[in-house]
Amino acid sequence: MRSGGDVAGVSPGNVPVYHGRNLKVVDQRVRVAEMVLRCVICGLGVLAAVLVGTDTQVKVIFSLQKKAKFTDMKALVFLVVANGIAAAYSLVQGLRCVASMVRGTVLFNKPLAWAIFSGDQVMAYVTLAAVAAAAQSAVIAQLGQQELQWMKICNMYGKFCSQVGEGIVSALVVSLSMVTLSCISAFNLFRLYGGNKGKSSGRW
Amino acid sequence: MRSGGDVAGVSPGNVPVYHGRNLKVVDQRVRVAEMVLRCVICGLGVLAAVLVGTDTQVKVIFSLQKKAKFTDMKALVFLVVANGIAAAYSLVQGLRCVASMVRGTVLFNKPLAWAIFSGDQVMAYVTLAAVAAAAQSAVIAQLGQQELQWMKICNMYGKFCSQVGEGIVSALVVSLSMVTLSCISAFNLFRLYGGNKGKSSGRW
Repeated sequence: MRSGGDVAGVSPGNVPVYHGRNLKVVDQRVRVAEMVLRCVICGLGVLAAVLVGTDTQVKVIFSLQKKAKFTDMKALVFLVVANGIAAAYSLVQGLRCVASMVRGTVLFNKPLAWAIFSGDQVMAYVTLAAVAAAAQSAVIAQLGQQELQWMKICNMYGKFCSQVGEGIVSALVVSLSMVTLSCISAFNLFRLYGGNKGKSSGRW
Repeated sequence: MRSGGDVAGVSPGNVPVYHGRNLKVVDQRVRVAEMVLRCVICGLGVLAAVLVGTDTQVKVIFSLQKKAKFTDMKALVFLVVANGIAAAYSLVQGLRCVASMVRGTVLFNKPLAWAIFSGDQVMAYVTLAAVAAAAQSAVIAQLGQQELQWMKICNMYGKFCSQVGEGIVSALVVSLSMVTLSCISAFNLFRLYGGNKGKSSGRW
């Protein structure tokens, strides 16, 4: 239960700030979960981008050199870009998290909460769409699509394909973490719209 | 602003029910938006599934009959199934919406809000992933992927491809509507976790 006494300080700009000593257990847990997820995304996002982005394989067929690289498939380019952006975004958000943990404050600032919520939503959908598109290409590369005469290429470029596969798995974990994060930031935003005990910013 | 007097009735199971005469303008707007979006998803979901699912084209090449159909591409099968499920899901949710509109009540029931939120989230991500995978296949079919010797097929099956394109646009609108809906249901759920004026169900 929260009582009115919890609100230890109200800043001039209608932004109630909850101080460290009144931090709820649930707030701390949510914040730790957020921090862990942002670290996971940052690490695995870089890993996925590097795994796919540095992947090449050269094959000699009848004295003809053929080289497979990730830019041959547009979906893999999208995957590398999306995961790079997700990693950079998570790094910035993680630093914000650390800063608010060090200060020991929870900012009940609606514009900031909206910004974080929107960013997390967009990143969740973008990373998931990138994984879906890359997985679709990977399935065609692995199995071929006989009816359309798209031949499978993974029997030719085995090492290339398995490294792309590892990258896609890593990107899948990134996108699932982003989905969980977007739920957390939705929670952080929309609970501000609950009945807020007579503060003018409590309801819209 | 909401005051304590708004709560007109509290049902036995710790489920406060807001009655029609006290319905907030914002609640009504959110509900109308939800209703409209569910209708759009139901209609366009069926349209997308029918457009893609009934799409065939027969081509005679050197007295050899070749038939293009949506089952040739696994991504299109996924698209049809996902949009069919989304339409059926929205129909059920729309009926629940109508029922609660007729009764004029807003149920502040956490388990139900969690169920709706979870369902909307899953449907949003599934429909978006289906669109991404289908769009990836469509791009390959339209432009080919020369490096991998996947040839473009849309110059052969023009009518087939344009109908699939219409289906994908329709499915894209469905998935964007589902994304908006999942934000609305997140709002409906998580505002229940705001400070709730001394009711024991107000905070976890």
